[in-house]
Amino acid sequence: MSLAHGLLAGLDEIAEVGRDAARGGYSRHLWQGADLELREWFTARATSLGLDVETDRNGNLWAWWGLPGTDAVVTGSHLDSVPGGGAYDGPLGVVSALDAVARLKTTGFVPTRPFAVLVFAEEEGSRFGVACLGSRLISGAIDADAARALTDRDGVTLAEASVRAGLDPARLGADPAALSRVGLFIELHVEQGRGLIDLGSPVAVASSILAHGRWRLSFSGQGNHAGATTMGARRDPMVAAARAIVAVQDAAVAQPGSRATVGRFEVIPGGTNVIASTVHAWLDARAETDAETRALVAEITARTAAEAAHNGCSATVTEESWAPRVAFDPALRERFALALGDVPRLSSGAGHDAGVLASRVPSAMLFVRNPTGISHAPEEFAEPGDCVAGVEALEQLLRNVL
Amino acid sequence: MSLAHGLLAGLDEIAEVGRDAARGGYSRHLWQGADLELREWFTARATSLGLDVETDRNGNLWAWWGLPGTDAVVTGSHLDSVPGGGAYDGPLGVVSALDAVARLKTTGFVPTRPFAVLVFAEEEGSRFGVACLGSRLISGAIDADAARALTDRDGVTLAEASVRAGLDPARLGADPAALSRVGLFIELHVEQGRGLIDLGSPVAVASSILAHGRWRLSFSGQGNHAGATTMGARRDPMVAAARAIVAVQDAAVAQPGSRATVGRFEVIPGGTNVIASTVHAWLDARAETDAETRALVAEITARTAAEAAHNGCSATVTEESWAPRVAFDPALRERFALALGDVPRLSSGAGHDAGVLASRVPSAMLFVRNPTGISHAPEEFAEPGDCVAGVEALEQLLRNVL
Repeated sequence: MSLAHGLLAGLDEIAEVGRDAARGGYSRHLWQGADLELREWFTARATSLGLDVETDRNGNLWAWWGLPGTDAVVTGSHLDSVPGGGAYDGPLGVVSALDAVARLKTTGFVPTRPFAVLVFAEEEGSRFGVACLGSRLISGAIDADAARALTDRDGVTLAEASVRAGLDPARLGADPAALSRVGLFIELHVEQGRGLIDLGSPVAVASSILAHGRWRLSFSGQGNHAGATTMGARRDPMVAAARAIVAVQDAAVAQPGSRATVGRFEVIPGGTNVIASTVHAWLDARAETDAETRALVAEITARTAAEAAHNGCSATVTEESWAPRVAFDPALRERFALALGDVPRLSSGAGHDAGVLASRVPSAMLFVRNPTGISHAPEEFAEPGDCVAGVEALEQLLRNVL
Repeated sequence: MSLAHGLLAGLDEIAEVGRDAARGGYSRHLWQGADLELREWFTARATSLGLDVETDRNGNLWAWWGLPGTDAVVTGSHLDSVPGGGAYDGPLGVVSALDAVARLKTTGFVPTRPFAVLVFAEEEGSRFGVACLGSRLISGAIDADAARALTDRDGVTLAEASVRAGLDPARLGADPAALSRVGLFIELHVEQGRGLIDLGSPVAVASSILAHGRWRLSFSGQGNHAGATTMGARRDPMVAAARAIVAVQDAAVAQPGSRATVGRFEVIPGGTNVIASTVHAWLDARAETDAETRALVAEITARTAAEAAHNGCSATVTEESWAPRVAFDPALRERFALALGDVPRLSSGAGHDAGVLASRVPSAMLFVRNPTGISHAPEEFAEPGDCVAGVEALEQLLRNVL
């Protein structure tokens, strides 16, 4: 990576890693091919900048400038993606962190505090279902036994996958020694909605993150023949699930500011001429406050049960993850916003590792404008000029705190 | 196979082939492991009965008693299954045909006409999407070029799969030489609804098959972030598809006697925190007449388009297969029903290879009672006594016509 143009070169270097020909965009999932390749790329790039890379007990990567130590300034993001995701969600923060180091080194800057670039594992939860898994593990926000038992779509547990990745599954979980080194965490991230388009600014500082979580809605009926079974004799979980999805949409629309989505869906057995026996629909629900989010999910749960019963089916609703509302440290937020020329403060509908860390250590986020307003899709974008504005802002904050 | 108890022994011999641990029941799909194993089993069993087995240009298996010839009596069914299907749908007809041969041979019976047991390929359409593929190919009911281009869920074409199965893809398609040998086709099959429970009879003769077909409903919207995208800014194809499934149900209920099902569903990209970009839902629709079925699908198509537009999405409806109503030869049906002691005549909601052949050669079907009324699911069943009644009926019809 050239020190002068490292930011865009860094994105170019990984532009072919994990492309998803079927979905478009990128599919980079924890400890699978593309993710492993990106980890090697990160290690090589960080090493070439003179950083020392270590993997913690939970598979997060730390690249230290000098000796590790307490009260460290740490910046970074993640390299994994949703299925068919964009090029910027995660990698922009990692590449910007590396480029900020390069820019600081170019000017002969020497940190007065320990400093590291951090890459969190499985931020999207695309393989094991729990978003921000790396930051939840290190901070103890997820129980280690529950985490070890998480399974991917092939039935491989996190414990099994961690062994293949060279980790000790017994040591997964809260890592206070690693976390206690962090005195300040800053995550730069591409904006995932239209916030910065509407505000007319290339960068913003994060103010808060919506409360959010994931629930699996499972419907059981009676598998049967699609031709031989009269409509009146059916207990079809597909119809119950479809009506529940309509209810999800209606409930979220009826509660202003909230968001509810079903984006993953599985039908068992899945034959065209077969009435399903079981259907799973995964709910992503978010709202401004914890109470509003819980109320939304309660409403959806009640309507799910009603639709199941109405169609002769049973339903269960299982919480797979929960993240309370995050309000970023107001003093830090204001200090950073003013240091950058009074840039906007922006609330986020998306969850982030910085949101998980915020309850443990002072944390802040920088957002970079996304001119499409689209994320988790191939259309996600950031103009080169805005990316540069982002890394310049990050560099300035690092000079301010190091 | 013991000649005395070959029927139940035959079912026992294949009881472990293709069990589906995830779905329950059996998954036996064209030219994949379980199907290949069943083909070997059939060849060995038929050979041990003194039959000569040949594979035709389309992968159907013929086991001849003596020399092949014209005006032959042919009986059989299929060995493939739906995903997670039952043990009887298909295999009962094959095992019964082999056992009928054994019973005839035991008594020293010698046919006066050519005779064969026939196993059709891909009756369920579970791998390549078109039901009764083997009988459609041999009879020219599907265009050979269209068939060769069919793909399975891994993108493998029928042409490619046929090569791996030892066939010449250029020779797939209408096979008048093979078909012209058939003077009469009889298919014994487990009943797939409650017909014979309600009639109180172990066996029946088929009267007709509902018109039916398969259509792919595809919805395109805008993939996006499930947390950062407000409800009002969405073009979510999952919501459009869910509303369309409700419309499918409502339309079928509103047209008495018709049946419509969505049992297969795919979401792209399929992430929990991702608003989908594309959703495919496969429709199975059936009704008493061709016109009623076409009217049902037209109604569903209109409502699909309306739901897509209402949710800012686009939709396409693509016909994947079509089978007109079948009325089995009335003279043959009455002759057989009376020969068996005036057993019931039963209409079928399920499609069968005998239905495809019926427009080309005299064809008849025997149904065996299913005490659960459930099919295409692990609960499908036939009592041993009813299975014996079925093979005795088949033996009697064969003695009647051979």
